[in-house]
Amino acid sequence: MDFERHLSHAARAMHASAIRKAGDVGLAVRDVISLAPGYPDPSLFAWDEIRDIARSILSGADPTVLQYGATRGYKPLIDALPELLNHRGITATPDEIIITTGSQQALDLCARVFIDAGDTALVELPAYTGAMTSFWNAQGHLVGVQQDAAGIDIADLDRVVLRERGAGRRVAFVYVVPNFQNPSGLLMTLGRRAELLAWASARDVLIIEDDPYGALYFDDVAKEGETRPLKADDREGRVVYLSSFSKTVAPGFRVAWITAAPALVARLEIAKQSADLCTSSIDQRFVYEIWRQGVLESRLSGLRAAYQRKRTVLEEALRRELGRHVTWPEPKGGFFLWASFGGGIDTDALLTRAIAHGVVFVPGSAFYVEPHHLNRARLSFSAPPPAQIEAAAVRLAAAVREEPEVRGRSGQEPPAGLAAPRTALESRPPE
Amino acid sequence: MDFERHLSHAARAMHASAIRKAGDVGLAVRDVISLAPGYPDPSLFAWDEIRDIARSILSGADPTVLQYGATRGYKPLIDALPELLNHRGITATPDEIIITTGSQQALDLCARVFIDAGDTALVELPAYTGAMTSFWNAQGHLVGVQQDAAGIDIADLDRVVLRERGAGRRVAFVYVVPNFQNPSGLLMTLGRRAELLAWASARDVLIIEDDPYGALYFDDVAKEGETRPLKADDREGRVVYLSSFSKTVAPGFRVAWITAAPALVARLEIAKQSADLCTSSIDQRFVYEIWRQGVLESRLSGLRAAYQRKRTVLEEALRRELGRHVTWPEPKGGFFLWASFGGGIDTDALLTRAIAHGVVFVPGSAFYVEPHHLNRARLSFSAPPPAQIEAAAVRLAAAVREEPEVRGRSGQEPPAGLAAPRTALESRPPE
Repeated sequence: MDFERHLSHAARAMHASAIRKAGDVGLAVRDVISLAPGYPDPSLFAWDEIRDIARSILSGADPTVLQYGATRGYKPLIDALPELLNHRGITATPDEIIITTGSQQALDLCARVFIDAGDTALVELPAYTGAMTSFWNAQGHLVGVQQDAAGIDIADLDRVVLRERGAGRRVAFVYVVPNFQNPSGLLMTLGRRAELLAWASARDVLIIEDDPYGALYFDDVAKEGETRPLKADDREGRVVYLSSFSKTVAPGFRVAWITAAPALVARLEIAKQSADLCTSSIDQRFVYEIWRQGVLESRLSGLRAAYQRKRTVLEEALRRELGRHVTWPEPKGGFFLWASFGGGIDTDALLTRAIAHGVVFVPGSAFYVEPHHLNRARLSFSAPPPAQIEAAAVRLAAAVREEPEVRGRSGQEPPAGLAAPRTALESRPPE
Repeated sequence: MDFERHLSHAARAMHASAIRKAGDVGLAVRDVISLAPGYPDPSLFAWDEIRDIARSILSGADPTVLQYGATRGYKPLIDALPELLNHRGITATPDEIIITTGSQQALDLCARVFIDAGDTALVELPAYTGAMTSFWNAQGHLVGVQQDAAGIDIADLDRVVLRERGAGRRVAFVYVVPNFQNPSGLLMTLGRRAELLAWASARDVLIIEDDPYGALYFDDVAKEGETRPLKADDREGRVVYLSSFSKTVAPGFRVAWITAAPALVARLEIAKQSADLCTSSIDQRFVYEIWRQGVLESRLSGLRAAYQRKRTVLEEALRRELGRHVTWPEPKGGFFLWASFGGGIDTDALLTRAIAHGVVFVPGSAFYVEPHHLNRARLSFSAPPPAQIEAAAVRLAAAVREEPEVRGRSGQEPPAGLAAPRTALESRPPE
């Protein structure tokens, strides 16, 4: 049977996730250390409390725990979220909230509710792959916008929107991750946030603000106030705000949420009915109880400290092992370090060498709208224990030493930390 | 802000689920008895075993229980499914299986992978609303096909396919629920199944076979062998088979699966990556352990007996309370009784009266491609306890007695079971 003929054009064009692919490599190779997926550290999950909660919610006293639930979500959790959002400066009512099966579903629902085939969706350069695949799968026309150290570049954004509209395309939205962006780790400045909101209002563009990492700022270099979401200052309902319990509670529970204007939430709800009817009832109870019992709040400072330590371990190991061969913007929170290697290093090729040395990461090309061979890589420091992060840096350095551009520096001493025996292989000029 | 302008055309055209709507009514009105949603009976869930499983899987020994999982699903569960499928006569390998977040997601993934905007999707008349909304939301052109007591009408199916293709439309698939169809409760005969498979092969049409209820046959009127899925006799990979743990374990765990040719499963996996990354890790562990420990298998006969009893309670109550004003094809399994009222009764209007009397159901119009005012209703006997089913029938009869067509039989005695005091209201001619 010719299966290809039975596929929709949409399916034939669908993008597989480069992150998931790199993650699979991590699983398939023995003893590999993975810096690829943005997984939280399971040793930081509240195992004891979750076990206690399981006993109480599964007593049978409440039969709805294992029943289908409302599409909008478990009502007590929806009613609790305004308080949690209030800590972030956001004023919201329950009719502005819908629970989603992870933030990936939130992105997918936004894609379906805001994008028609051919509409333009604007993303940062680089941007989160998972969001891009959702926008692509809704047959959106993705266009990248430059960002600098302060966040998305408003002048470039304006140029792009005028160009797209000039070409007759509807601009569905601009998608941003202001807090510890995936993959760059960048923290958008408060000034840039204000500019972005004002610009969006002037140009009548919807903003999708994705904020999975905001609670995980590193207090040696960032303040909580710097993570204030765009949504907190949204007076028009222009911002569709996404956040999740995956990084702060556990991603094995697929529970996230969208906060948006009631008219938009109503549409997202209809889209969710046909997507999966409802999010797991029991997962929502777990998350609700973890919030209600204060477990979430009481653990946040510990989570911040733990991820901050891991970031420091990775930064120090990279400096020691790779010296000037790698640079990065300092991660002020979140899970990611966005590494730039020497100009001649192609991280897609480097990945193959890295796997041979037992370490895996996501090449920068995964985070761009257009296929790029790039000298960037996303290194996730969130999941592995510190000793593994150190070992990963040693392995990565060994892979970098095999790069033609590094091996080919004839007449120069190898830089500190790269003093490995020369191989007999011929050097190739960098591409 | 004008939110409507920011919605995709797809979102503006999206269909809300009539079942979910009726279900919400059921929740909103105090003391209402709901025969609307196809919920399993929570008193039949394996609460004790599930509680024990929670304790063991949440010990912390396996950190992946609360971590992101593979998009394809939890490997031990995937590896277990061939054995379960084998009981149904289906030979499958793990690469023919993908876990989904409930069968609703399976339907949605099928819609996205097989339907392009404007493609024809064929459904039975009547058909499951949730499937139709997924196909509509993928912008499919839905066309209904007649069914008779033996199942989908092959002659009508052939006529429709030739007409659609003649009109230049691609036929994406035909969607069928051969076992205890939702909403009609019909069991497609084995002969009809064979005809359907042969026809699909001859016309090169894909079959989506949805089988959530197959294990719940009623052995007073049906045999296990009569539930043999089409997929069991599919030699070409033409059948995409959907099934679920929602009716046999619990729907609060959102765990279902698709069995299809490896080439199709690979595409469905890519679609799932952007839909929700992965199904709840902990939900999959629960379901896997329930299977592994033999809890699922050992409880099936009890489930069958319990739902069979409820069906009998509803049938007897309807006969007693409504006499010849209602008829139905005998449910041989599953959750639904498909009631036909007197020709003049419009069940959309009846629903309003029924709610006033404290009972809710899903009007037949919800299950048709074209909007219909119909004299049919889906009565779910699965969730309420027997005494409530009896009370629901009494209330329903009271609502029917207020119907103009029943009240208007001047000169006739009200039929047995409908002998209620006449009201002073004028009768209206039936529409």
